[in-house]
Amino acid sequence: MVNQIYKQVFSFFLSVLLLQSSTVSYVRKSFDLNKPCRHFVLYLHNIAYDDDNAANATAATIVNPLGLGDYSFGRVIICDDPVTMDQNYLSKPVARAQGFYFYNKKTNFNTWVAWTLVFNSTKHKGTFTIMDANPYGMEPTRDLAIVGGTGDFLMTRGIATLKTKLSQGSKYFCLEMNIKLYECY
Amino acid sequence: MVNQIYKQVFSFFLSVLLLQSSTVSYVRKSFDLNKPCRHFVLYLHNIAYDDDNAANATAATIVNPLGLGDYSFGRVIICDDPVTMDQNYLSKPVARAQGFYFYNKKTNFNTWVAWTLVFNSTKHKGTFTIMDANPYGMEPTRDLAIVGGTGDFLMTRGIATLKTKLSQGSKYFCLEMNIKLYECY
Amino acid sequence: MVNQIYKQVFSFFLSVLLLQSSTVSYVRKSFDLNKPCRHFVLYLHNIAYDDDNAANATAATIVNPLGLGDYSFGRVIICDDPVTMDQNYLSKPVARAQGFYFYNKKTNFNTWVAWTLVFNSTKHKGTFTIMDANPYGMEPTRDLAIVGGTGDFLMTRGIATLKTKLSQGSKYFCLEMNIKLYECY
Repeated sequence: MVNQIYKQVFSFFLSVLLLQSSTVSYVRKSFDLNKPCRHFVLYLHNIAYDDDNAANATAATIVNPLGLGDYSFGRVIICDDPVTMDQNYLSKPVARAQGFYFYNKKTNFNTWVAWTLVFNSTKHKGTFTIMDANPYGMEPTRDLAIVGGTGDFLMTRGIATLKTKLSQGSKYFCLEMNIKLYECY
Repeated sequence: MVNQIYKQVFSFFLSVLLLQSSTVSYVRKSFDLNKPCRHFVLYLHNIAYDDDNAANATAATIVNPLGLGDYSFGRVIICDDPVTMDQNYLSKPVARAQGFYFYNKKTNFNTWVAWTLVFNSTKHKGTFTIMDANPYGMEPTRDLAIVGGTGDFLMTRGIATLKTKLSQGSKYFCLEMNIKLYECY
Repeated sequence: MVNQIYKQVFSFFLSVLLLQSSTVSYVRKSFDLNKPCRHFVLYLHNIAYDDDNAANATAATIVNPLGLGDYSFGRVIICDDPVTMDQNYLSKPVARAQGFYFYNKKTNFNTWVAWTLVFNSTKHKGTFTIMDANPYGMEPTRDLAIVGGTGDFLMTRGIATLKTKLSQGSKYFCLEMNIKLYECY
């Protein structure tokens, strides 16, 4: 009798295990956006090259706007921007934001961004990449997707919430990047 | 006796749980491609800028081809294309396809694409990004990877299957985008 | 009595199942980097277009450097590079590396890379995309993130470890790409 119960429970258990390991057609999960596995705030500083500031410049226009609308449509910028822990651009960088962005809207300031944050210190080694639209002329706060990483950020994914903290015409801007990672390894 | 059975079953159960939570070296899953967690069809409309159609243009060449082969090698296009629910380009857009693409083959028409679909309506808010090769000159149907998203498409991944529905020389094209998301949150 | 045990075990079991399916706020996993679900080594060959080698060229500069520093800052290259199983560039290609890269550092040779490996043979059909910083002037071995794929590489993620095997000035280079995929479907 007792043996039989054991068998019943065991077989039920096995069937559930088999069920769990059977073909998964998709992954559906609920997220608590307030509970990332990693969370930190960084500041990116972008100093545009103007032909006279080669020593300080951290970014440069490589393709000029087309004259299609009044919002720089077509301008492409390549950057290697310092990233710091506070808003002071003279603070010691903890990472570099390497990548490019371009203006792609006729009716407002809007960029499309691909930035890899490169960490190379005794504390952190590795990279992760932010890639998304950045409608900074329309929205004070923008969520951009983090799609992959290496080293300390191996295979990570998540969201970077951007706010422009300071903007000095086309010369300088500082972005707050609120980094929330939801896949950590 | 009965207590003992309980203990046996319990210990077996615990060991399986521990097994499940132990170090995972990789993730291997089987997919039923026919069962995405989200599935919808969209149409992208691309009107090329020709210096005279600034009001209607949704895309513009920012780098001209090099003359390497006969298939536009080197041409780079930036776009902010309307995306609709049907093939009529006058239909109300449900999203914009923001990003860029370029021609990169000497022997046939082939683009490399990075497009972020930006939804900003009362119904849908958020983005997801398609990035892949698009060998439209060789294959009537192309699968492109969806690598990340935000908002309603937070952390999503999947496949966009593209078909060219209409192409009017270098002036206009309409793409059907069959969107299948296999990771939904 | 026996019935009661069954109920107890069953209810305990159910509660664990419910626990497993409840809201997941994030995914945290440990990885054994030595145990990818797929692992292979490929060689990429890049022959730069110099106006006289249209037949052989596999890549071409589409934007010239700016003169900001001595390390080609601003140079953008589009490529359709053959990828082989060994270091001999005359070997039969198993894939093409389609995409672009650009130089983005004032102080050393450093590229930012987005390459899609396109497989289109009887053996392998599909793509995956490598996207990351590539500090080849500073580091003999670089890890770059693999962020998505299609076909045989559907939804894959992982790491491509790059080593420069041969470099002939600006004319030719050969990269070893050690591909380790940690998500396979």
